Amino acid sequence: MENLMEKIISLAKRRGFVYPGSDIYGGLAGTYDYGPLGVALKNNVKESWRKKFVSSRSDMYEVDAAIIMNPKVWEVSGHVGGFSDPLVECTKCKRRFREDTLKEKGKCDECGSPTGEARQFNMMFATQIGAVEDSSAKVYLRPETAQGIFVNFKNIVDSFHPKLPFGMAQIGKAFRNEITPRDFIFRVREFEQMEIEYFVRAADWEKYFEYFKAEMLAWMEEIGLDMGKVHELNVADADLAHYSKRTTDFEFEYPFGQKELYGLAYRTDFDLKNHGLEYVDDLPAQAGEAKIVPHIIEPSLGVDRTILALLCSAYAEDEKDGEVRSYLKFAPHMAPVVCAVSPLLKNKPELVDKARIVYGMMKAEFGRVMWDDNGNIGKRYRRQDEIGTPWCIVVDFDTLEDDTVTVRDRDSGSQERIHINQLIQYVQEKI
Amino acid sequence: MENLMEKIISLAKRRGFVYPGSDIYGGLAGTYDYGPLGVALKNNVKESWRKKFVSSRSDMYEVDAAIIMNPKVWEVSGHVGGFSDPLVECTKCKRRFREDTLKEKGKCDECGSPTGEARQFNMMFATQIGAVEDSSAKVYLRPETAQGIFVNFKNIVDSFHPKLPFGMAQIGKAFRNEITPRDFIFRVREFEQMEIEYFVRAADWEKYFEYFKAEMLAWMEEIGLDMGKVHELNVADADLAHYSKRTTDFEFEYPFGQKELYGLAYRTDFDLKNHGLEYVDDLPAQAGEAKIVPHIIEPSLGVDRTILALLCSAYAEDEKDGEVRSYLKFAPHMAPVVCAVSPLLKNKPELVDKARIVYGMMKAEFGRVMWDDNGNIGKRYRRQDEIGTPWCIVVDFDTLEDDTVTVRDRDSGSQERIHINQLIQYVQEKI
Repeated sequence: MENLMEKIISLAKRRGFVYPGSDIYGGLAGTYDYGPLGVALKNNVKESWRKKFVSSRSDMYEVDAAIIMNPKVWEVSGHVGGFSDPLVECTKCKRRFREDTLKEKGKCDECGSPTGEARQFNMMFATQIGAVEDSSAKVYLRPETAQGIFVNFKNIVDSFHPKLPFGMAQIGKAFRNEITPRDFIFRVREFEQMEIEYFVRAADWEKYFEYFKAEMLAWMEEIGLDMGKVHELNVADADLAHYSKRTTDFEFEYPFGQKELYGLAYRTDFDLKNHGLEYVDDLPAQAGEAKIVPHIIEPSLGVDRTILALLCSAYAEDEKDGEVRSYLKFAPHMAPVVCAVSPLLKNKPELVDKARIVYGMMKAEFGRVMWDDNGNIGKRYRRQDEIGTPWCIVVDFDTLEDDTVTVRDRDSGSQERIHINQLIQYVQEKI
Repeated sequence: MENLMEKIISLAKRRGFVYPGSDIYGGLAGTYDYGPLGVALKNNVKESWRKKFVSSRSDMYEVDAAIIMNPKVWEVSGHVGGFSDPLVECTKCKRRFREDTLKEKGKCDECGSPTGEARQFNMMFATQIGAVEDSSAKVYLRPETAQGIFVNFKNIVDSFHPKLPFGMAQIGKAFRNEITPRDFIFRVREFEQMEIEYFVRAADWEKYFEYFKAEMLAWMEEIGLDMGKVHELNVADADLAHYSKRTTDFEFEYPFGQKELYGLAYRTDFDLKNHGLEYVDDLPAQAGEAKIVPHIIEPSLGVDRTILALLCSAYAEDEKDGEVRSYLKFAPHMAPVVCAVSPLLKNKPELVDKARIVYGMMKAEFGRVMWDDNGNIGKRYRRQDEIGTPWCIVVDFDTLEDDTVTVRDRDSGSQERIHINQLIQYVQEKI
């Protein structure tokens, strides 16, 4: 399975999904850069999430808060005091590790010598804002997007007067100074979250907790995650975060083990109470109004982990005529490239001209369309398989006669001839 | 004109476009949070840019690089040594200012006392990465997105083998510790850029400089900027950045003055040379290959300044029956809300039910559709005008008879009756 992870990382870099951050300068641990195919995949993920959880609904308000916030936010939220991991240092080689992830308790992962006592290491990145270098100007990069939602709760209520239950949503980056970033884009120092804070009356929390659990599962299936590798884990009371009364983790079987993918938490009224925020409730069945503090259900999803789980779900190999083919069986609506268009032969201008017309037509309709005329047709198929392109469209000599093209299916390898006039509909129906 | 800026800022906050960052904790200078309408407007801007400059083309490669990069990047780029502003301190009240923007040379903007000598203040935000607190772990938040493109140049060439000319594009945040952030979202400490680095052969630079100038102007018009307020300024040789041989600034007449909106720079081969990057050119008319360093044309656009310029372009007032109405005349394809749907009366279930059906139909088609049943119909029109909704659709008693609805136009205030079956087409044709 380690080998599978290596294959995925190698493919991701070679073909332009994900590159190590600052690659030409030797990288920077825990940072990654997305290439064109990774950007396309991320955009499809974010758009799909936004469509299901925000824009198709009437009760969701999306915000985009600043990454650098007033430091009081992190004092109130408890992050300044408590957002830390236990750090140990090897007594011999001086390397540092997270104590709770040591391969062997109390022993250095690298040289096997004993480690020293653990100390708490705050994972927030700190920086100085403004031109005055005193402590009042110390700020943090947000370690989560949730607080950016809470501080805008009052703004949203004042601008839109939403009725309970309603939600606020946000897509954005967060930063954690992980002691030991690892496992490709699983544990990184800079990552992107898609979060909802859903505000409900206290009595309704279980109903909406179950509702969002079902919605999250439906979405995972919709984007094409391998649902056989997704597991629900109800976090034991003793392990719950201090603000939560119930949390369900969705774990995924990555090649390096079963680990967290998404989280769904019942955060009670902890956050709004902390920030001193209230809501004037217009109780439906009663006369009058009452000031209450809504309770929160939080479906929290990481973009990067979604990409990783999609790559792991899609990666496949098969064998044909003694040759191993690796391909990514993305759901067509999620694939970075919907279809590739090729002339059968690159040196026949009449084929190239016709293929350019087909390419232009498909590109105008779908955007995510690639021109590919490099190498022989078999090589092109392999190359498109490897990036998960569902269909390869080839213009050949028959096309010049009857306006039909070859459409070759990624997964089965089967080919059929489709009239150019029906191409758009053919692809549209499948995505 | 100051008054106009105040009106726009007030509207932006009241109606949910842009809020001061960390508002409930007294804010944080130079940071802003986008509300739902601001997020929608930003998404329309980014999608429009991406469509025109990236996804409709075959020669553009979009990346999404990490914000925190290896610090060597900023040494090589010259930012560690030179990315600074002249900072002066008031000798009396100790307030600090950027020397070159003082209202009166050498005098404190606040108390009028003399300021001290200027010192250079580096505008990059610095932070510590990793658990070891020595200087080798000092990193910066990127002050521009361009370097995130350059460090991925080799990755893109290796993954995609593009032929010259080709471009790399990126949308992402950048951070600058401005001494005096001001003018709403014009000069902020955290902002979003949409940038292209277009790689050309040295001899072709003027051609592509002119080409992108025209493309940028076409795009500004397309998104609905007031082109009468856009001015081209060819930066004088003496004022050019050290890496540039020609720069055109596009300035906009904001209420606080004519200032920079976008930039278009010819960066020569400065960046790729600095980073030691080459390209093996397959010269079209000649035999063989040659290692060259491509030259760069850089069209650079700020998302936040686009939003500000759009708000300033769209803001309008007129008078009817002695009442002043303020509205945002966004181009329909850019408006955060395409249409609002209302029942004429909120307490008539048959109207509400029918309006819900129309709402559901429009929401499924366009996403950016609002349900609005609050207050009388005149108030709803004013409210939708103020957020720039092009059409208000009202279900009334006639609708129950003949399935037609009233469609009211934002700018003219005129109304026409449209059959429900033709509503989608009606709106689609106009956006």
